[in-house]
Amino acid sequence: MISEACYELGSKSSVIREIFAFGLKRKEEIGADNVYDFSLGNPSIPAPASVRKAILELLERPAEELHAYSPASGDGKVRKVIAESLNRRFGESFTAEHIFMTCGAAASLNICIKALVNPGDEVIVFAPFFPEYRCWVEAAGAKLQVVQPRLSDFRIDFHALEELLGPKTKAVIVNSPNNPSGVVYPPEDIRRLADLLKEKSGEYGAPIYLIADEPYREIVYDGTEVPYLTRYYRDTLVCYSYSKSLSLPGERIGYIVIPGRLTEYGRVSPAIAGAARVLGFVCAPVLFQQVAAMCVEDTGDISAYKKNRDLLVKGLSEIGYSCIAPQGAFYLFMKALEPDACAFCERAKKYDLLLVPSDDFGCPGYVRIAYCVAEKTIVNSMPAFQRLMEEYR
Amino acid sequence: MISEACYELGSKSSVIREIFAFGLKRKEEIGADNVYDFSLGNPSIPAPASVRKAILELLERPAEELHAYSPASGDGKVRKVIAESLNRRFGESFTAEHIFMTCGAAASLNICIKALVNPGDEVIVFAPFFPEYRCWVEAAGAKLQVVQPRLSDFRIDFHALEELLGPKTKAVIVNSPNNPSGVVYPPEDIRRLADLLKEKSGEYGAPIYLIADEPYREIVYDGTEVPYLTRYYRDTLVCYSYSKSLSLPGERIGYIVIPGRLTEYGRVSPAIAGAARVLGFVCAPVLFQQVAAMCVEDTGDISAYKKNRDLLVKGLSEIGYSCIAPQGAFYLFMKALEPDACAFCERAKKYDLLLVPSDDFGCPGYVRIAYCVAEKTIVNSMPAFQRLMEEYR
Repeated sequence: MISEACYELGSKSSVIREIFAFGLKRKEEIGADNVYDFSLGNPSIPAPASVRKAILELLERPAEELHAYSPASGDGKVRKVIAESLNRRFGESFTAEHIFMTCGAAASLNICIKALVNPGDEVIVFAPFFPEYRCWVEAAGAKLQVVQPRLSDFRIDFHALEELLGPKTKAVIVNSPNNPSGVVYPPEDIRRLADLLKEKSGEYGAPIYLIADEPYREIVYDGTEVPYLTRYYRDTLVCYSYSKSLSLPGERIGYIVIPGRLTEYGRVSPAIAGAARVLGFVCAPVLFQQVAAMCVEDTGDISAYKKNRDLLVKGLSEIGYSCIAPQGAFYLFMKALEPDACAFCERAKKYDLLLVPSDDFGCPGYVRIAYCVAEKTIVNSMPAFQRLMEEYR
Repeated sequence: MISEACYELGSKSSVIREIFAFGLKRKEEIGADNVYDFSLGNPSIPAPASVRKAILELLERPAEELHAYSPASGDGKVRKVIAESLNRRFGESFTAEHIFMTCGAAASLNICIKALVNPGDEVIVFAPFFPEYRCWVEAAGAKLQVVQPRLSDFRIDFHALEELLGPKTKAVIVNSPNNPSGVVYPPEDIRRLADLLKEKSGEYGAPIYLIADEPYREIVYDGTEVPYLTRYYRDTLVCYSYSKSLSLPGERIGYIVIPGRLTEYGRVSPAIAGAARVLGFVCAPVLFQQVAAMCVEDTGDISAYKKNRDLLVKGLSEIGYSCIAPQGAFYLFMKALEPDACAFCERAKKYDLLLVPSDDFGCPGYVRIAYCVAEKTIVNSMPAFQRLMEEYR
């Protein structure tokens, strides 16, 4: 009698949640140091000191101003600071008007999807992909179309993409650096993607939107360049979150970039505001709007993630595991030792290794290892990975 | 080609927004002190000092714990503190499991609506009502049914309610203290409402849910009792927000109470989690989850609102205006001096009186005066109200 769809969504056992619960139980039983929990994408490095400093500074303002409602799109000065930072970094020409503050990346993405799609439309994603995409796209009455990756390097399989593009395609979501593969699409892939979408938009007589999901933009290694998609393709919306760059995942603060050059800017911009309203977002949390502006180009100490990545890639390769080389984010995508990744993860649990099977990411046969953990967790886990490997030999 | 519904919602000129923009312009032209802006429900009294103290204390915790994700339903300890406070205050027996932390009242309400209704269902509200109800109910594919008030005192017209109750009624929303009328429904009305809903639920063979929208619960005057609805009716969900009680409207923090005694608890509880997920809420902002727990029974200095209310009611009555006696919240609902409240508000603008017409609240012919303003705004506005009255004589 109540909403079946919401009930299903809330009651079906989430694999990650189950692993997390198992981990909590095991940590109580054998001590936290003896459980190698790679299940969650919760940043392990603290927010930069500038965040605490900013909050202390903000607390000097009158409380009735500091905590007041902002406009639905966010504080005008905050949006200006963010626009100017993007202009500086990516040679753009955004103004405050082009920035819409949100309650983090989930809000950014869901608002964009809701604003753009009509029932019957299609949204294309590249596997492996963040599982919530499906839930938001389907809630908007649209169909999720999944492009499988080029398995050699997990970059875009353009042949597969072209087969799925059609007159019903309303948007394509690009998540680079990618959760869960850690892959960053290079400029030549983005250029080719942009050319293809331009061509198809022209052919179908309506813009196909590119939605850039970028919470991991700042977390890249070895000087890898992450192309800024608005520079390549006119009809791009950028969804950003400070969850990972400032290690503030629980504070729910991010933004959408709605470039003025969008073909349908005069319609998309109000639709974004309307979508936020219909989803029940009043304004992004105001204290952290100010914090974001005051720390706009800061990050936590990313080098800790790089060290973890290097340790993990080297250790696992030496044991004989096969991994996708990660250039960004804090996930390693590793081939399971049997076709059924869920069964593999069950076996791994015997060694207190908590890994996430790739099935929900639309790309079976792999596991996600979240290496936003203490360095010692990685070092100490190696014998467990070794024993797991031996079980399969 | 993009979502027409979202475009419409985002682009249609909001009366309150227009008045607010006019006010900003006038304040620049003639000085803020000369504009009597009663348009917005933004608390004028600061958050209690305990909020700042709590934040300072929380900043001593390690940043990577303080700002980490909480479970989707909120921090377990925070939920326990809130449940225990409700038990103490209202003789309830809630546990942490019955509290779901949210990004404020808008999120609380939209999640409940989304979780409960199916397309074709009906949701009943009592005019005057918060305009966003319509937007959320219709987005869920349901129909909003509006019960007009008993005009003598703006309490529930049970005859009108009974005519709208039917087998399609999934929920009834009660907002008391009411925005915009300031009316608090007394216990005898709530008892009668509960009896009627019990009877009709039995008749139709399915629970009709009561949704209590309570952001103004703490803002009441003259010792008025606000009945706690779970005590009167089994199938009640409570939507709460700290926006008004702690003067934190921009921080987006509130909760839903999902009592264990709900007829369909085992289905409603997961549906609430599913609805939050599908709307894109990951978790309520974590810093302010902790603040809410640490300040759980605090409020700002409500006596300032009472002083404003008394000044305003006395002043306007002496001039000859007719108002609904407000027992709570910080709004006065005043009869317009002509049937068209929009036209009346236009005339009021000539005297730099910024009032909100009642049309969007589903109850034409009135204006909402938000008296969460500086005392001097009320005192200084009286000659303007006087001149406005003279224009109609």
